[in-house]
Amino acid sequence: MAAVEFWFEFASTYSYPATMRVEKMAATKAVELIWRPFLLGPVFGSQGLSDSPFNVFEQKGHYMWRDLERICEADGLAFTRNPIFPQNGLKAARLTLIGLAEGWGVDFIKAVYRANFVNGLSISDQAVLDALLEECCQDVARVADLAYAQDNKDRLRGNTERAMALGVFGAPSFTVEGELFWGNDRMESAFDWALR
Amino acid sequence: MAAVEFWFEFASTYSYPATMRVEKMAATKAVELIWRPFLLGPVFGSQGLSDSPFNVFEQKGHYMWRDLERICEADGLAFTRNPIFPQNGLKAARLTLIGLAEGWGVDFIKAVYRANFVNGLSISDQAVLDALLEECCQDVARVADLAYAQDNKDRLRGNTERAMALGVFGAPSFTVEGELFWGNDRMESAFDWALR
Repeated sequence: MAAVEFWFEFASTYSYPATMRVEKMAATKAVELIWRPFLLGPVFGSQGLSDSPFNVFEQKGHYMWRDLERICEADGLAFTRNPIFPQNGLKAARLTLIGLAEGWGVDFIKAVYRANFVNGLSISDQAVLDALLEECCQDVARVADLAYAQDNKDRLRGNTERAMALGVFGAPSFTVEGELFWGNDRMESAFDWALR
Repeated sequence: MAAVEFWFEFASTYSYPATMRVEKMAATKAVELIWRPFLLGPVFGSQGLSDSPFNVFEQKGHYMWRDLERICEADGLAFTRNPIFPQNGLKAARLTLIGLAEGWGVDFIKAVYRANFVNGLSISDQAVLDALLEECCQDVARVADLAYAQDNKDRLRGNTERAMALGVFGAPSFTVEGELFWGNDRMESAFDWALR
């Protein structure tokens, strides 16, 4: 059976509720879930955008914040609008790759989203990331050495390039072999596709 | 109880499956449905876009066509990609306003969407529109006189202005008093909002 690859970005607002429910969806559907951090910057850049579309298109951005608030309420998720938007998720994504390889990645991912959308912190701040790593019982210096090494930087770049090759243009996205699904609201369709 | 206003555009691709299921949704939820044709041109123009975002952002457009195809398949709707995109829905929208006032509007709306997304026709072609009016048992000359009169042009402009005042930035959209929902996939949320 095909796995679902879950493409998420720490700057992405709808990736927050998606992250918080994707494990349960995978378990319910009994489909393998693969977490794929990537960067939206190069994706938006290739579309000629130098900022989040939610900042470029003001009415759309205004709507998104309200929609996100409704979704979090419906999902029972705490939510506070963080004035920092979009966040720079580069370091968090590099750390995540180490965590996913070592088995503490999903806990760290959720901790980063909570730091952003519940606690209103800056997730590009190394002190904030250090505290989240400690929450996940990790040695900060050891993980940072691995995360910021060239081979790991290259892995993250490789993820972003593969996302773009698959046609990903926003986050969250889901791919099932060559089939692309965009948005938190396409999650169930993606898992159903894996079961076809 | 609040009604749901359904904002649709004949150029809008996702408005096609939305149109084909909105009556059933309204009946199931027992909520009043108000059909609101409007024009996306001025809405996109106010966002600095001179074409559909699906043409401006190529990867997004590529995805949209595939996504629409999947949605139509899941909904049991015939679908053929029309090479004309976006269509000019101005005349069809003006005719629709007359139809909605006279009771044949919903049949006409569905006929226009089928002409576009099933039969691959140009819905700005008056001969095509004439044939659709005849399908709805209407006297073409009589309806055209009403539809293209200044007061009806002003009604359509008024709809578009009201949509923008409500924060509508794309189609389909739904409003319930001041609450905005965007997209075919937010239809159920909009009707549920009316029941709160």
